[in-house]
Amino acid sequence: MPGDSVATRRRILDAAIAEFARHGIAGARVDRIAAASGSNKALIYKYFGNKDQLFDAVFDTIVVQTMNDVPIDADDLPGYAVRLWDWYRSRPELLRLNQWDQLERGGLGTQAEVARRASSDKRAEIGAGQQRGAVDAALPAATVLDLILSICRTDLETPDPATQRTVIETAVRRIVTPRTR
Amino acid sequence: MPGDSVATRRRILDAAIAEFARHGIAGARVDRIAAASGSNKALIYKYFGNKDQLFDAVFDTIVVQTMNDVPIDADDLPGYAVRLWDWYRSRPELLRLNQWDQLERGGLGTQAEVARRASSDKRAEIGAGQQRGAVDAALPAATVLDLILSICRTDLETPDPATQRTVIETAVRRIVTPRTR
Repeated sequence: MPGDSVATRRRILDAAIAEFARHGIAGARVDRIAAASGSNKALIYKYFGNKDQLFDAVFDTIVVQTMNDVPIDADDLPGYAVRLWDWYRSRPELLRLNQWDQLERGGLGTQAEVARRASSDKRAEIGAGQQRGAVDAALPAATVLDLILSICRTDLETPDPATQRTVIETAVRRIVTPRTR
Repeated sequence: MPGDSVATRRRILDAAIAEFARHGIAGARVDRIAAASGSNKALIYKYFGNKDQLFDAVFDTIVVQTMNDVPIDADDLPGYAVRLWDWYRSRPELLRLNQWDQLERGGLGTQAEVARRASSDKRAEIGAGQQRGAVDAALPAATVLDLILSICRTDLETPDPATQRTVIETAVRRIVTPRTR
């Protein structure tokens, strides 16, 4: 039944997120994903293709989740950064998936179509913010996004969550606030 | 002879840097390091201990190299950041070693003694800069260092090296410049 198929895909993706986060792409094993999702390798290959394509599907899935749960807001990039920071802290496996992607694929967007489009949308949103004067326009919009994402993925050496949020908020605010002349 | 032993250690470390950068800790193979350095596994174990301890030695080595070639300067953190950015671009394997360290060990300083001390020295230098008013004191010194390192390791989506340096310099300057009241 279609309902079953959707649920099975979801279970496979959840298991794949955990497996790739722990072991990376080269180290991930499809038979472990099959076992953890109560599925089988043939079904995984049928639904998602090979292991690399399964990683693409995982990457697209987490990008969509992140966009839905933490939408970008060029009128309040410091607030966006704090929400993204909190989101990553609540889902540390997403940080690991990003790092595996960088190490094993050379960075976001080499393969995953949805991820590439999401980056492009976020850049456009920041660019529009620069045009209407909500975001300082000294730096290219794409690099402002890169800086914010990098800051939100920093492992801050302070144990206090309130201090961590202040650091993230302050750093991003200082970078993006339009200069007065 | 001692001279031979120093040269052999150096060759092993260079081969280990390349092997760990490519494959990570779990994926690295000591026999490949032996072959690439014209040495043998027994000698590697004798000099460095097991594979994890060899990674420690690699990490300590690159930290010392980085400190020597790019000394921190709290009176000019934006300039320091640009020099560090250039350094990482000229040695991309160092960025990969940092990422493997984060993925497989949970981040800098869990093992390597020299690396831990180097971080502590850099934090102290930034803290002293805050005390004498050269660095804004709103954020804890340790987190200022974390932000700078993170920014210098960002994969910026702009191909032009001059623009990249401007982005790094501007971002760090805005974060660390003392606010006027």
